[in-house]
Amino acid sequence: MIAVSEAQKLIEAHSLTLQVIEVNLEEAFGHYLAEDLNAPISLPSFRQSAMDGYAIIHSEAKNLKITGQVQAGDVQVPALNPGEAIRIFTGAPVPELADTVIIQEHTTREGDNLILNQIPAKNANVRPVGEQLKVGDLALTKGHRINEASIGFLAGLGFTSVPVYKKPRVALLTTGNELQERGAPLKPNHIYESNGIMLEMALKRIGISQIEKIKVPDTLEATVKAVKKTLEQADVLLISGGISVGDYDFVQEALRENGVQEHFYKVNQKPGKPLWFGTQADQSVFGLPGNPASSLTCFYVYVLPHLRLRMGSKKPFLEERKAILQQDLRNPHDKTLFLKAGVDQNRIMPFTGQASSMLNTYAVSNALLVIEPHQTGVKQGDTVTYLDLNF
Amino acid sequence: MIAVSEAQKLIEAHSLTLQVIEVNLEEAFGHYLAEDLNAPISLPSFRQSAMDGYAIIHSEAKNLKITGQVQAGDVQVPALNPGEAIRIFTGAPVPELADTVIIQEHTTREGDNLILNQIPAKNANVRPVGEQLKVGDLALTKGHRINEASIGFLAGLGFTSVPVYKKPRVALLTTGNELQERGAPLKPNHIYESNGIMLEMALKRIGISQIEKIKVPDTLEATVKAVKKTLEQADVLLISGGISVGDYDFVQEALRENGVQEHFYKVNQKPGKPLWFGTQADQSVFGLPGNPASSLTCFYVYVLPHLRLRMGSKKPFLEERKAILQQDLRNPHDKTLFLKAGVDQNRIMPFTGQASSMLNTYAVSNALLVIEPHQTGVKQGDTVTYLDLNF
Repeated sequence: MIAVSEAQKLIEAHSLTLQVIEVNLEEAFGHYLAEDLNAPISLPSFRQSAMDGYAIIHSEAKNLKITGQVQAGDVQVPALNPGEAIRIFTGAPVPELADTVIIQEHTTREGDNLILNQIPAKNANVRPVGEQLKVGDLALTKGHRINEASIGFLAGLGFTSVPVYKKPRVALLTTGNELQERGAPLKPNHIYESNGIMLEMALKRIGISQIEKIKVPDTLEATVKAVKKTLEQADVLLISGGISVGDYDFVQEALRENGVQEHFYKVNQKPGKPLWFGTQADQSVFGLPGNPASSLTCFYVYVLPHLRLRMGSKKPFLEERKAILQQDLRNPHDKTLFLKAGVDQNRIMPFTGQASSMLNTYAVSNALLVIEPHQTGVKQGDTVTYLDLNF
Repeated sequence: MIAVSEAQKLIEAHSLTLQVIEVNLEEAFGHYLAEDLNAPISLPSFRQSAMDGYAIIHSEAKNLKITGQVQAGDVQVPALNPGEAIRIFTGAPVPELADTVIIQEHTTREGDNLILNQIPAKNANVRPVGEQLKVGDLALTKGHRINEASIGFLAGLGFTSVPVYKKPRVALLTTGNELQERGAPLKPNHIYESNGIMLEMALKRIGISQIEKIKVPDTLEATVKAVKKTLEQADVLLISGGISVGDYDFVQEALRENGVQEHFYKVNQKPGKPLWFGTQADQSVFGLPGNPASSLTCFYVYVLPHLRLRMGSKKPFLEERKAILQQDLRNPHDKTLFLKAGVDQNRIMPFTGQASSMLNTYAVSNALLVIEPHQTGVKQGDTVTYLDLNF
């Protein structure tokens, strides 16, 4: 049995990034950049007006004659001469001799004559070439997670595609003879299968869509076969259940028979103690506890960071934050506790119903309160650490 | 011009939820529940063993004879008599007379004889019927946002579909003759269009996939026609650009001609002052500034909460958090400032490059620092408020 921090280090140590692919900008959302990207053009690429107003020469800032106008998108730009002003709109190119744009609210127009009611600062409202970024400048760095702002930014630079790491293909094996599919009345002593769809949604939430789901009967032969088959396709294999030491838990043996190398089995934590992790060449395998809440906790603390690392992330773990605990808690067994909790501003309250089978409290949790093994007793009012489930 | 808080109130006041639909559990992720849901079965629905071990009668906790075994999923459960123990596995039904499960690690087995090395507490490791939830209990409340844990929970209760609010169909109109599509060298005085794809990705991030994108030429006639056409289909219309007071900004007139009622125009904020919001019957329209960073800020502060409200959310606004400012800031113009910022633990630092055209800093921001109009000068070390861009 190893500590949570050791388990996380082993997960990190065995997280090869996947291959680099070029994807269209439309498909890049949620991917991580596989290379530094430099700006192919300057932003802006021409001297641009930041406002609606009049382009002027600052040293000539007196009453002027309006001799033309320029709109955003105009290829032909009228020439400006001393004593003149050009009507200009936001985004339009600034005429060559102009150095300043006076906003229309600070002027009075009388026919073709422009009266300046205020004198603007020199260079006001003119965006110089490369103000945001010069051609060749570093635009975004390798490992950057592509969000909506990055996509807008890259679109503005004219990128049509970008190099990113592939997202892993994941296989989800669920074990357990007691599991029943939804859609029919529950058979005696059975439970509706929930881990498969729950983990599938958790994977989709982090942008993974190539997911193969397989239900495995509780026999060694079937488990060996299913592991072999999924390892032909998947980059990451998640197995739900069958990882304990009961006589009908065949997962470990099936992984051994398939040559998957164990990196750890059992973590000093509650819930989720019987977590298994191993690799075979560049594929990775997690044996997750069958209890749904344990399974989801292991997903957040280990599987999600591992998947993010394989996608190229540099900050793979869920964000740790601090809050003030609203009740006393005991932790007598020298374990790391992960408690489903609600956090509101900086106050955190663990829910009643922490059993590893209970998803009802997980459904309304926005935090996973972390109590370290040495924290045998924490008190109401103590500052505690939690993992933010808004990610 | 109105204050940010007034604008947000108007957005809330004009945010009708969309119709209620029943969706399959697989499609429910990211939707908001339209009704309270009660448990159709108890969880667990039978007395279940929480561990691998032996089912016993606590008052008979001495050395016992093993007379049978029961696995998870077994429909037939062997009878247990006084003086006997039944081998039992996690998730298996507990025999009728048994009240306790002793874990296997606390026993020694010799043939059919079981030696108890510890006496467990009465009822240990037996999950009573309804321990998590009893049939008819409230499972999840109206307005709950369905996440992966809720989906697992609802699957475990046997739900195959759930009543949710429809997600809005959104039309995205981009205006601006200076805009050019990616994929060809940039024409003089043009810019690559970025707001359309950026807003599309922002919409997809909050689970909206029915998005129609239309590019509108800068004429009143084209703008009137495009607004009319999109209002035939969309629940929410987002118009990027053309909302200022320049001679070529036709959006307001086009909206008036289409009978859209204005609720506000211009908010006392930077960036994003020329924001427009209106409704027509149960459709809503936002006129967003054309500058990409202004546009995205208005999306986060107004459009996103509005869309969430229409989807049934009870907490529509981005989470407000506190952090310690790492530099002095001036805010002399009595406006609300939204500054692109990086927050690390509880330290926040606005980026250099706040201009409303600049997406480079937005791409790496995880926070939007909020400076209120009365905060004319904030100092390094002050506690400030930010909107969390991890959502």
